[in-house]
Amino acid sequence: MEGESELDMEQLLQKAGVLIEALPYIQRFHGKIIVVKYGGSAMIDDKLKKEVIQDVTLLKLVGFKPIIVHGGGKEISSWVDRLGMKSEFVNGLRVTDAPTMEIAEMVLNKVNKSLVQLVEELGVRAIGISGKDGGLISVKKKLSEGQDIGFVGEVEKVNPSIIFDLLENDFLPIICPVGMDENFETYNVNADDAACAIAKAVKAEKLAFLTDIEGVYRDPNDSSSLISELTLREANELLEGGTVGGGMLPKLNNCIDAILNGVSRVHILDGRIPHCLLLEIFTNKGIGTAIIGDQDMKFYNHEEK
Amino acid sequence: MEGESELDMEQLLQKAGVLIEALPYIQRFHGKIIVVKYGGSAMIDDKLKKEVIQDVTLLKLVGFKPIIVHGGGKEISSWVDRLGMKSEFVNGLRVTDAPTMEIAEMVLNKVNKSLVQLVEELGVRAIGISGKDGGLISVKKKLSEGQDIGFVGEVEKVNPSIIFDLLENDFLPIICPVGMDENFETYNVNADDAACAIAKAVKAEKLAFLTDIEGVYRDPNDSSSLISELTLREANELLEGGTVGGGMLPKLNNCIDAILNGVSRVHILDGRIPHCLLLEIFTNKGIGTAIIGDQDMKFYNHEEK
Amino acid sequence: MEGESELDMEQLLQKAGVLIEALPYIQRFHGKIIVVKYGGSAMIDDKLKKEVIQDVTLLKLVGFKPIIVHGGGKEISSWVDRLGMKSEFVNGLRVTDAPTMEIAEMVLNKVNKSLVQLVEELGVRAIGISGKDGGLISVKKKLSEGQDIGFVGEVEKVNPSIIFDLLENDFLPIICPVGMDENFETYNVNADDAACAIAKAVKAEKLAFLTDIEGVYRDPNDSSSLISELTLREANELLEGGTVGGGMLPKLNNCIDAILNGVSRVHILDGRIPHCLLLEIFTNKGIGTAIIGDQDMKFYNHEEK
Amino acid sequence: MEGESELDMEQLLQKAGVLIEALPYIQRFHGKIIVVKYGGSAMIDDKLKKEVIQDVTLLKLVGFKPIIVHGGGKEISSWVDRLGMKSEFVNGLRVTDAPTMEIAEMVLNKVNKSLVQLVEELGVRAIGISGKDGGLISVKKKLSEGQDIGFVGEVEKVNPSIIFDLLENDFLPIICPVGMDENFETYNVNADDAACAIAKAVKAEKLAFLTDIEGVYRDPNDSSSLISELTLREANELLEGGTVGGGMLPKLNNCIDAILNGVSRVHILDGRIPHCLLLEIFTNKGIGTAIIGDQDMKFYNHEEK
Amino acid sequence: MEGESELDMEQLLQKAGVLIEALPYIQRFHGKIIVVKYGGSAMIDDKLKKEVIQDVTLLKLVGFKPIIVHGGGKEISSWVDRLGMKSEFVNGLRVTDAPTMEIAEMVLNKVNKSLVQLVEELGVRAIGISGKDGGLISVKKKLSEGQDIGFVGEVEKVNPSIIFDLLENDFLPIICPVGMDENFETYNVNADDAACAIAKAVKAEKLAFLTDIEGVYRDPNDSSSLISELTLREANELLEGGTVGGGMLPKLNNCIDAILNGVSRVHILDGRIPHCLLLEIFTNKGIGTAIIGDQDMKFYNHEEK
Amino acid sequence: MEGESELDMEQLLQKAGVLIEALPYIQRFHGKIIVVKYGGSAMIDDKLKKEVIQDVTLLKLVGFKPIIVHGGGKEISSWVDRLGMKSEFVNGLRVTDAPTMEIAEMVLNKVNKSLVQLVEELGVRAIGISGKDGGLISVKKKLSEGQDIGFVGEVEKVNPSIIFDLLENDFLPIICPVGMDENFETYNVNADDAACAIAKAVKAEKLAFLTDIEGVYRDPNDSSSLISELTLREANELLEGGTVGGGMLPKLNNCIDAILNGVSRVHILDGRIPHCLLLEIFTNKGIGTAIIGDQDMKFYNHEEK
Repeated sequence: MEGESELDMEQLLQKAGVLIEALPYIQRFHGKIIVVKYGGSAMIDDKLKKEVIQDVTLLKLVGFKPIIVHGGGKEISSWVDRLGMKSEFVNGLRVTDAPTMEIAEMVLNKVNKSLVQLVEELGVRAIGISGKDGGLISVKKKLSEGQDIGFVGEVEKVNPSIIFDLLENDFLPIICPVGMDENFETYNVNADDAACAIAKAVKAEKLAFLTDIEGVYRDPNDSSSLISELTLREANELLEGGTVGGGMLPKLNNCIDAILNGVSRVHILDGRIPHCLLLEIFTNKGIGTAIIGDQDMKFYNHEEK
Repeated sequence: MEGESELDMEQLLQKAGVLIEALPYIQRFHGKIIVVKYGGSAMIDDKLKKEVIQDVTLLKLVGFKPIIVHGGGKEISSWVDRLGMKSEFVNGLRVTDAPTMEIAEMVLNKVNKSLVQLVEELGVRAIGISGKDGGLISVKKKLSEGQDIGFVGEVEKVNPSIIFDLLENDFLPIICPVGMDENFETYNVNADDAACAIAKAVKAEKLAFLTDIEGVYRDPNDSSSLISELTLREANELLEGGTVGGGMLPKLNNCIDAILNGVSRVHILDGRIPHCLLLEIFTNKGIGTAIIGDQDMKFYNHEEK
Repeated sequence: MEGESELDMEQLLQKAGVLIEALPYIQRFHGKIIVVKYGGSAMIDDKLKKEVIQDVTLLKLVGFKPIIVHGGGKEISSWVDRLGMKSEFVNGLRVTDAPTMEIAEMVLNKVNKSLVQLVEELGVRAIGISGKDGGLISVKKKLSEGQDIGFVGEVEKVNPSIIFDLLENDFLPIICPVGMDENFETYNVNADDAACAIAKAVKAEKLAFLTDIEGVYRDPNDSSSLISELTLREANELLEGGTVGGGMLPKLNNCIDAILNGVSRVHILDGRIPHCLLLEIFTNKGIGTAIIGDQDMKFYNHEEK
Repeated sequence: MEGESELDMEQLLQKAGVLIEALPYIQRFHGKIIVVKYGGSAMIDDKLKKEVIQDVTLLKLVGFKPIIVHGGGKEISSWVDRLGMKSEFVNGLRVTDAPTMEIAEMVLNKVNKSLVQLVEELGVRAIGISGKDGGLISVKKKLSEGQDIGFVGEVEKVNPSIIFDLLENDFLPIICPVGMDENFETYNVNADDAACAIAKAVKAEKLAFLTDIEGVYRDPNDSSSLISELTLREANELLEGGTVGGGMLPKLNNCIDAILNGVSRVHILDGRIPHCLLLEIFTNKGIGTAIIGDQDMKFYNHEEK
Repeated sequence: MEGESELDMEQLLQKAGVLIEALPYIQRFHGKIIVVKYGGSAMIDDKLKKEVIQDVTLLKLVGFKPIIVHGGGKEISSWVDRLGMKSEFVNGLRVTDAPTMEIAEMVLNKVNKSLVQLVEELGVRAIGISGKDGGLISVKKKLSEGQDIGFVGEVEKVNPSIIFDLLENDFLPIICPVGMDENFETYNVNADDAACAIAKAVKAEKLAFLTDIEGVYRDPNDSSSLISELTLREANELLEGGTVGGGMLPKLNNCIDAILNGVSRVHILDGRIPHCLLLEIFTNKGIGTAIIGDQDMKFYNHEEK
Repeated sequence: MEGESELDMEQLLQKAGVLIEALPYIQRFHGKIIVVKYGGSAMIDDKLKKEVIQDVTLLKLVGFKPIIVHGGGKEISSWVDRLGMKSEFVNGLRVTDAPTMEIAEMVLNKVNKSLVQLVEELGVRAIGISGKDGGLISVKKKLSEGQDIGFVGEVEKVNPSIIFDLLENDFLPIICPVGMDENFETYNVNADDAACAIAKAVKAEKLAFLTDIEGVYRDPNDSSSLISELTLREANELLEGGTVGGGMLPKLNNCIDAILNGVSRVHILDGRIPHCLLLEIFTNKGIGTAIIGDQDMKFYNHEEK
């Protein structure tokens, strides 16, 4: 029927429009490294999981160089419980003794290889490594207010040569946040910290945190105060204002640290929105909050107006 | 308002869907050469022109290797007229004497550089060459039913090294169909023939003709008999059936020739449809008629069902 | 004291002698790939473990290209028990249901990263991967006498490009025997089979199995009938003779398979002997049993007589 | 006959002498870029034209990296006339409106491809490009004493990457002086200015202008006052002296500009002398006037005395 | 004076003509390997020596890849005498005992480095090696009618990898004809044989022998019967005719051997003519006798008529 | 027998121990350049000679980049005598007139090629060059207290590109100390000076002098005062102390010069001890005296305690 076909054509043209709309973004990020901290709900919900992997794979295929850094928090807890191990806490942080560290590493590697599997399924070469491979992440013991809480590490140095080698060979690297200290002992590292340290070391263009919040609020109690864009200066002011609370504080510190070290734009994305990563990168509809460096503002001012 | 934002989100998700839908096609054609014969209305209408260039540029940016081969037919005629030169015809073909050849070459180069301009404007490196550069196209004189019709050439050999060099250096090559004979005289070449010869010489994955028709009809008098897909065998049968007429005959011969020489899929597209190239490649809604080689059928059978 | 110093000098000269004795072997295997199947006691005893890693690292440093393929058998069992999971057996083979496979993969990855750690500690770049990374190992379900025993895979194809990429970048690859089927499901693979399949795919010069036996016996009941060298023909005769029993049968089949596919020499080493790998390669005192291909005989005949 | 043969041998030895005499020059310019501004009579007279192309081709074959930048002045005028277009002049400069620019570009491209043809005929890979290809020449509108004279451009930036790519692939680049402004509009550029800007951007060793004069005169009215060599200081003094007139003034300014930007030696050659380019480079008989930078003086002092 | 200047210009144009005449030859041999057997008078007379070196250096500079293989015959004899050593002869061949071999090698290396010196003086990178370096020439003992005449070797194998490495690094290799047998004993090799064996191993385009004769005569007693060109067939007929005598016989055999193994053209040049090498290559006036392979005839037929 | 086999095993384990002990040293010097000045008794005694060559070859095979610089002193004298030439001395130095230089060069090249022979025999690619090849060593005439003593040169400049090219192509370069002055005249150079100058030019990690003494003594008259390690400061103090005498003085100056120019460690080894080179590098038992730069101390302090 005529009518149907006309409808079809209209839809097709809309499709073409979406693809054409992506042109400047594909161009802007061609060959650029984008570090994605993958965690939260997007890692638990199977549909969201598949969508994140589709997004990252698409980024790879159109010529960007994405890197996934993932956590494994909730699953670690569930295995610790399942094994009937006692959990001790200090200042709200789990004490990571040797047996706990062993479980944590096993779980993180399991998650790691399951992500490899999903990417390979989409036909892209993936490789799953930890911060131990190629001496990627060197750590020192992290104390919690002066107290030893076991094998919890603070990133001391990132040796990115393994990442560059893998990117050069066209792999999509998937990294779990485990490192070694100078005695080659294994430590757990906070995944946000690891992602930030890696983004800095590889001079990433973009660092995106998939979280379970909508973004940064000017007033945490007012859901209408969501901030869509923060300059470095504004981010600092917000921190000093003291209204940023809880889990957002270290994340915002990581954002600022990344920007100061050459990352052009850091995103706090709501990982509960399907394809949030794709939408953030390929449309000019901002999702979540972006913290932006100075040289990056030019491109967006130019493109987004 | 809630409602508005929900609408927004739905639109965004549709956008993401379109991009994700492109994934298998991006993967399939990554690093592959796609020759686009650019001509007809799509070359005259400024909006269509811009859209073709956007399409080709997008192909380049997502990792394909497009090559444009263009004609210039109508504009050549108009300049010949403007210069008050006489036109002589033999069997319906214009006799191309030396002064006409001079005009033709000038006009083709003008068109060539105007396409370079449009691609460069989109931020992609373009280079406009003719079949004389780097000895790309060698021709011999073409007779029309035994009669000398001047500097009209038949492609004898394509030396593709210049194209490989330019692709290697990340250029989008734009080629006008002019060649030289063994005495280094300049000849005009039919753009369809040139595109086909180049596609064969560079072992293109795809060859697409932008035309001013909807595609191939089983019965030229019945507009509902448009064929969306032809195997090599069917295309041959159609030819032998004798119903293929006029301008379609040499085009279909070119298609078959290309397939027999290693091109996986040849498209006769309706260049009057905006973004027909993009739609053909990135959606499973066929535009126009595709002639397909055997190994290509597998992919499409697998993907499109 | 004179005397002491003379003694010293004598010891020093002996040391020099050992190094010089290594010369022809270093030369022979320069740049050659050596696949080491690492398992058994050498994987449990900490001293032996350290020594194996020292050996492999030395091989790397003097210019060979060693690859470790490891198992994890006993540790998998212990974790299955620890988690209170039921074990079911069919024809003596453990049925690997999904939860068991999950545990197996976690344990194998744990072992994998602990080996990375040991190699990195010696200052050599290691990378731990599984057969899922880069699509290295493709499997199909293996039946045990027609019965489904779960996620136990038979190697269908090895795609060695990831290994070549890693060797090219000077990594020592450490591989755990896990693969995926065509639906991207995870399967456990016998480590001997994986080592053999990888050795064939990368055209290894040598394949060495670290085992818990002295080698192959002509008569399994007569410990003085240890065979130090078998030609391909002799190995086949031995198999046909029917005296080879138990665990040795598949191992010997793997050896023959590897030789037939271009590996020059396969070793069944006694992994309980410290530095058995080094001794086998760098001295002309054979350790265990060697199965040798025809072209390899020339070198050894020349060197060892 | 004896006598004849002796005569032959003497001629042969003279030939050998000429070739040997070329040795230090071949050595001096090996791998060096030489920009040739090609224009004037040498472009109109067919014999001279062929000789210039032979010269440039020889430079290419003995290991130099020549680049041709050509004009097309007289032919543009003749086509403008032929098309019956009105010519308007401001301060002696032709006003280049859009239709004129269109003609100019067509003619320049025609000349460009005819040069490609001649070089290809001699068996050397040539490629003809304009300043639009690869974004080679960026311009801004040039005003004539404050007045808009249309699409006449002043070089703002040369992006030489396309030239380096082509040289790397062993092409002889032939360039016509057309550029684009920031809105991707096409402009005509003075060929001398384009050659000078390109020579500076590619750090050419030599820049040679083929002209229709003998060289620079100390006194324009005294044909015996031809200067064969000018240092930078002397060239400046000459300019300040005010005796340099007409067309020589901008040319001399270009020479000085090139020298100041790293070109070692600029030549104003008499293009009416056959093989003037070859003679200038391969003999120590100066043709025309050379403006020389400081580091270049050493070589010539050493070689030419 | 007008007249003088006109004379000058005429001479200059003749110079240009000589250079232009060289064009097709430079093109033909670009990147091609040319082996020059250097010996005879051209090695003793200081002026001729300098001219040969100039010729070879020029070949290098215009893009060919010349290789010099030299002898040292007369100087070896003079040093043997000077050291008061007895000379013994068998069938007219000097018996080369160990002390004689020692002298021979010393003298050959002396000559070798003196040639390096001359080439370096002309500003070209030279390297002097013997057939011992990089295992270039492997020999076996050569018997003279069944009798042992000492360390006189017959070339068994040429391993050209050292030559390719040196050419790749842009060296002009200068080689003296000394080789080693399978026990790594040093042997003297006839320089003609060495040159021929090397030309075959490196697939040289041309092999030129500098000799002390005018060329090959049809009738050795008739100086007017000098042959300027021989096809392979004619050369064989000449050999079979039995009129070729003395020193020419092995030389002609070497020529035929080289042609049969892929060298396009072999020259027997009169090394007493200054610049004979240059004249042979760059002019169409043949010097001496050329033995030509079939595919080479085409070029020369085309060029020389 | 049991007992015998146990003894065997013990010996084998000792062997393995020696190899493992070499690990950190192999790692430390991987890819590093080590210049060995080869002279004295180790060059005359056939057994020592063979052992030095074995040592250097082993260094090459395990991944270091050794370079041999050799002298030829005693053999030159013996040939000068044999040829009945008069020797004249000035301040204890032989006057090197042209005929003596000719002999010296011949003898040095003879030694050079005999070393090539020994290395090739061990299956490693060697190439023997002099300082004339590739313009390696440029010299000026050296005066002895103001007096001209002939062709004795002082190193002015080392152009190491030939060495880098040869190392890149995996050759073991063997260099004899002959150079050319600006007029391309040949000069003899002291081998110690040549080795030191080369070590500096190639930024060697280590420079080792094989000598006929035990090392440096604090008190030359007290054989128990042998110094095993000297810092730069201590070496300077020793020099200033005035107790260093005779041949050691210039050697120590060379050592200090090398250290100051970036060589990490210089060794004065007792070449009369078999395999002294190997022992020095692969064990922590110091042989002779080491002069060490500051950054090198760290490694040895760490490794050797």
